[in-house]
Amino acid sequence: RDKLVTGVQTCALPISEKITPRSKDFSQWYLDIIQHAKLADYSPVKGCMVIRPNGYSIWEKMQRVLDGKFKDTGHRNAYFPMFIPESFIRKEAQHVEGFAPELAVVTMAGGKKLEENLVVRPTSETIINSMFAKWIQSYRDLPLLINQWCNVVRWEMRTRPFLRTAEFLWQEGHTCHETEADAEEEVLRMLEVYRAFAEDYMAMPVFTGIKTESERFAGAIRTYCIEALMQDGKALQAGTSHNLGQNFAKAFGTQFQTRAGNLDFAWQTSWGVSTRLIGGLIMTHSDDKGLIMPPRLAPLHVVIVPIFKTPEEKDEVLSRAKLISDALKAWPTQRANLGGPISVQIDADETKSPGWKFAEWEVQGVPVRIELGPKDLAKGQAVIARRDTGEKTT
Amino acid sequence: RDKLVTGVQTCALPISEKITPRSKDFSQWYLDIIQHAKLADYSPVKGCMVIRPNGYSIWEKMQRVLDGKFKDTGHRNAYFPMFIPESFIRKEAQHVEGFAPELAVVTMAGGKKLEENLVVRPTSETIINSMFAKWIQSYRDLPLLINQWCNVVRWEMRTRPFLRTAEFLWQEGHTCHETEADAEEEVLRMLEVYRAFAEDYMAMPVFTGIKTESERFAGAIRTYCIEALMQDGKALQAGTSHNLGQNFAKAFGTQFQTRAGNLDFAWQTSWGVSTRLIGGLIMTHSDDKGLIMPPRLAPLHVVIVPIFKTPEEKDEVLSRAKLISDALKAWPTQRANLGGPISVQIDADETKSPGWKFAEWEVQGVPVRIELGPKDLAKGQAVIARRDTGEKTT
Repeated sequence: RDKLVTGVQTCALPISEKITPRSKDFSQWYLDIIQHAKLADYSPVKGCMVIRPNGYSIWEKMQRVLDGKFKDTGHRNAYFPMFIPESFIRKEAQHVEGFAPELAVVTMAGGKKLEENLVVRPTSETIINSMFAKWIQSYRDLPLLINQWCNVVRWEMRTRPFLRTAEFLWQEGHTCHETEADAEEEVLRMLEVYRAFAEDYMAMPVFTGIKTESERFAGAIRTYCIEALMQDGKALQAGTSHNLGQNFAKAFGTQFQTRAGNLDFAWQTSWGVSTRLIGGLIMTHSDDKGLIMPPRLAPLHVVIVPIFKTPEEKDEVLSRAKLISDALKAWPTQRANLGGPISVQIDADETKSPGWKFAEWEVQGVPVRIELGPKDLAKGQAVIARRDTGEKTT
Repeated sequence: RDKLVTGVQTCALPISEKITPRSKDFSQWYLDIIQHAKLADYSPVKGCMVIRPNGYSIWEKMQRVLDGKFKDTGHRNAYFPMFIPESFIRKEAQHVEGFAPELAVVTMAGGKKLEENLVVRPTSETIINSMFAKWIQSYRDLPLLINQWCNVVRWEMRTRPFLRTAEFLWQEGHTCHETEADAEEEVLRMLEVYRAFAEDYMAMPVFTGIKTESERFAGAIRTYCIEALMQDGKALQAGTSHNLGQNFAKAFGTQFQTRAGNLDFAWQTSWGVSTRLIGGLIMTHSDDKGLIMPPRLAPLHVVIVPIFKTPEEKDEVLSRAKLISDALKAWPTQRANLGGPISVQIDADETKSPGWKFAEWEVQGVPVRIELGPKDLAKGQAVIARRDTGEKTT
């Protein structure tokens, strides 16, 4: 399968007619889920993926929740250039050592060779510090709490959709503080935000802890992370929070006048999660039938599949389906506890059979399916199928 | 001023102590507004800007409204690679002619020279068509309505923050249709979405129309646009909607089986607006005192400036300010008609004088300021100042 991502010509995920069972080949099962649920596709560019609408809508849900949590903890969003002068990356010794092998480099622009090469950001500590150094003068400017949603590039040899791709989407928080203790507090605060998001929204239990020296972020003094256990028994790093000490501040001269009137370098943090979370979501919950979505992140909560043969049955079933749909959409959001209204879709496509639709919506992981036919109507009932347990109730 | 953006070393907007009057130098006034309202800053990278939190929060507001409108018209978001094989750009003759001079090119990655250069997307018709060609088989797959929020790069010689920068943020819609008429309908539908957004949310009247051949998008058969009149009497192109005909579909083989059973190339559109809108917003409304924000896009609607000297006055004034703030925040959103709750901030900073705060919030363009002191309390009143007209009422 690695062949599929090595050339500019190849642009197809391997097509499996059916989803490979986890027990047979976990790795192929993961790719099959992504293909059958239309979450992502390989692109013609080596190691880069296309996030299809079904996959992107999960990312949008994740972004909305996380962005709210970042703002609630005092952060504001900003945007910094994607291009970083090569000399900047070299200013912090460990940083360049860690990232140099993975850089994509722009050497020509506007039809000319550049005087200085520009690297595409693998992360933005350096370019952001070049601005922080200018914006921060005094302890009154601190803490400075910034977040950025963007794309980054880390050239990887072996890639897998969502888990490891050359380009990916993420958020990167970057903060400056007066003291080492303040920075450490921020690092742990954001680690807790990640933990709570993973557990409360993704329903993905995580282990929080500190990384070993060899796995530490290039330029940090301490890296904390959340790690989750996947169904194949392997751990997945799902988010990191770094105490950068004064390393980047010293490299870029990010100094401030202290309360005592001295000059000191800012104490900094950075922290990030990426579209890799979608990979973690898949490998935590999904089964051999397809995707399983935790309701708080599911783009669609309920699908109603109407069953009918005659035009009379059709009218009756569809109008009842509409009533159920309206009632669910009007359900008090606080009771639903999904962070917003219940989303409902009636799948009235007459070119597909109910059985085909059941399977298709199971592949896409819609948490609840409601089946509604003339017999149900006669009995004043409906069949409700839970996607996660497969349980059917009347 | 052009010197400021030509080197890697320069990273400062020209600092003017005061905002230059429009009548004296409109161009400098524009830059002064951006600097004093902390909307953006030059970066150390030639032609690239940093969008600061005050500027980015305007973009977030714009994104939320536009994204809702795109979804209401049936579009779904997706994400395609930022890197495009150089050969793709060359597949559509007019397209390469139009964009070749502005491309930034990645020639090295992962420590090696690439077999094929990758250009950083100046727009994504080519990479997206390479995927559309794969996803579309039949008329049943149409219309396909996709939007992407992302960064793009067009290497420009002369740059101005928000209006023209090497990298900028935008959205690009890309759609496929069965017939030319369907495509034209989509082009005009999205032009109308842009017009309505500009007029109803930005309070920026626009002229809608068709571009001349020389100003047409490189690869389109027709380009429509919205243009707005700035305070210096110049027009600003604020959004474009392109009928691409079958040009890109033919270059990439984006074909579908028609209802009649034949093969045809998809009829396509693309349309986009960018962070340039923020420049248009500034040049439409702002004055010599600073930014003026239309309320529906203002990140902050109301600032309350409490005035007090003694601790007793402070307690009284702040508790009354809190009551006013709570009442405004609880104001029915439908009556406020701002697309959400009224946002309110009490500026209780005791290190700054009320006069300093008045000027500062005027610079930042907060639509309404409420001044509240002991004398006001005694009379059971407050002073309300409108930012746009300068009018004060009691």
